[in-house]
Amino acid sequence: MTVALRIESTLEAAVALAEAQNAPPRLAAALRHAVFPGGARVRPRLCLAVAEACGGGDTGLVEAVAAAIELLHCASLVHDDLPCFDDAATRRGKPSVHAAFGAPLAVLAGDALIVMAFDVLARAGAAAPARLPALLTIVTRGVGMPGGIVAGQAWESERSVPVESYHRAKTGALFVAAAMCGAVAVGADPTPWRELGEKLGAAYQVADDLLDAVSAEADCGKPTGRDAALQRPSLVAQLGLKGAHARLEGLVGEAVAAIPPCDGARSLRDLVQIQATRLAPKQLARSAA
Amino acid sequence: MTVALRIESTLEAAVALAEAQNAPPRLAAALRHAVFPGGARVRPRLCLAVAEACGGGDTGLVEAVAAAIELLHCASLVHDDLPCFDDAATRRGKPSVHAAFGAPLAVLAGDALIVMAFDVLARAGAAAPARLPALLTIVTRGVGMPGGIVAGQAWESERSVPVESYHRAKTGALFVAAAMCGAVAVGADPTPWRELGEKLGAAYQVADDLLDAVSAEADCGKPTGRDAALQRPSLVAQLGLKGAHARLEGLVGEAVAAIPPCDGARSLRDLVQIQATRLAPKQLARSAA
Repeated sequence: MTVALRIESTLEAAVALAEAQNAPPRLAAALRHAVFPGGARVRPRLCLAVAEACGGGDTGLVEAVAAAIELLHCASLVHDDLPCFDDAATRRGKPSVHAAFGAPLAVLAGDALIVMAFDVLARAGAAAPARLPALLTIVTRGVGMPGGIVAGQAWESERSVPVESYHRAKTGALFVAAAMCGAVAVGADPTPWRELGEKLGAAYQVADDLLDAVSAEADCGKPTGRDAALQRPSLVAQLGLKGAHARLEGLVGEAVAAIPPCDGARSLRDLVQIQATRLAPKQLARSAA
Repeated sequence: MTVALRIESTLEAAVALAEAQNAPPRLAAALRHAVFPGGARVRPRLCLAVAEACGGGDTGLVEAVAAAIELLHCASLVHDDLPCFDDAATRRGKPSVHAAFGAPLAVLAGDALIVMAFDVLARAGAAAPARLPALLTIVTRGVGMPGGIVAGQAWESERSVPVESYHRAKTGALFVAAAMCGAVAVGADPTPWRELGEKLGAAYQVADDLLDAVSAEADCGKPTGRDAALQRPSLVAQLGLKGAHARLEGLVGEAVAAIPPCDGARSLRDLVQIQATRLAPKQLARSAA
């Protein structure tokens, strides 16, 4: 089965469970809307790639933790798009969940996706319960307080924002979780994988800032120019377009260098570099060409 | 240590972890505001009482799952109070989280509390990982889709609402989880405890409807008269005040009858009856006197 299929079928099974006959139908529809069709599924891909690089495994636990991390990412997008945050009408080229279903169901869809992530982990973890505590702890650290993506979003409600903590929490934390969980799920030591997650997460944050600054809404499927409009800390504001682009290239290089020596290092390196070429916003590539 | 102290100190340890030096301070404050001082802590008390009735245990897992369930309950209160739902300015006799910290931090506080609940379980579960999958599955069933408290809240966004599914999900599901998890945490079979959770949850929903209909805001620490104002399904609307009160008494009796034969049955029966006398709204007791 291809990597994409392993991810999509695990997500499909999780969403299908929420669509039982006695479920409130509009929330069930909102969940499907939030998860499919997906974006690049970068975090679960990273998780599966690390697991593969660590020798793989066949417990279903790898797919489960990859899907759990993607569900948590989807939950954060649904809540970030709410009127009280970004008030984004579009996401992945279609109406955001609150635009399509209203704010109440968008709040609940985010909540349900967070719970669903832990349910997916619990079900798959029954086959390897000894690995569950570490997987859960890594995932909750990537998502919750004090330094996960929820904390990252919360920095936007503070008067004084340490840009590095903000970015590390808002984007980096879940990449770190994805990389480290890929190792734990197959029984490997997660420590050597932290830095790869950090560097990739940082690269994604720079790419996201660039995308927001230079892309048209039609190109990236969500509103752009939001950082400036909402006065959010942005690396483009800090370093300028060229400076941010140079930082992105530097971080991708550092990510490749952070891959620990292992059997699957080469294919993981290829994955990082393929992702890296997708990271540079088209607009910037055009203006640089 | 008293039951109350076991619950409060476990909650305190969880909230303290979220207050690390690098945490966004306003979200950290919002979390503490959402959890302390608590209400009656009925769900964790039920969880501890069932564990005790099943012979108890000393792994810390019982306190952890009890605290996790209370954190999930707190999360649901924070989100239910949001402007897009009940728009409640008060809760437990003080400003609701969104009234004190704004809607963005209230959304994030709810999210962080959900994640915190699973983190508490993960940390304590490391000592007894074999019990984690069942605990997690019972908890996620009580909270998420298709039939947990998130689903219960989502029924309010549907045109046609099956009152029984609505109440069972909105209140009953987390009581069922509390009762069943109390058994699993000490290695006992959870199945015989489901009915006690169902009956107690149903009794609490009737009591909540009565409270909303007859109490003054000052008596119950949150806005009242909301069911009628928001045209929510209510057993008071359906059965009248006397009918709803009779249903409450019937359900408490059924809860007592549902306690399985066990060593701790008597003290559990006492607990249910003490809670039951607290359930009847003062206003109703006064008018019946």
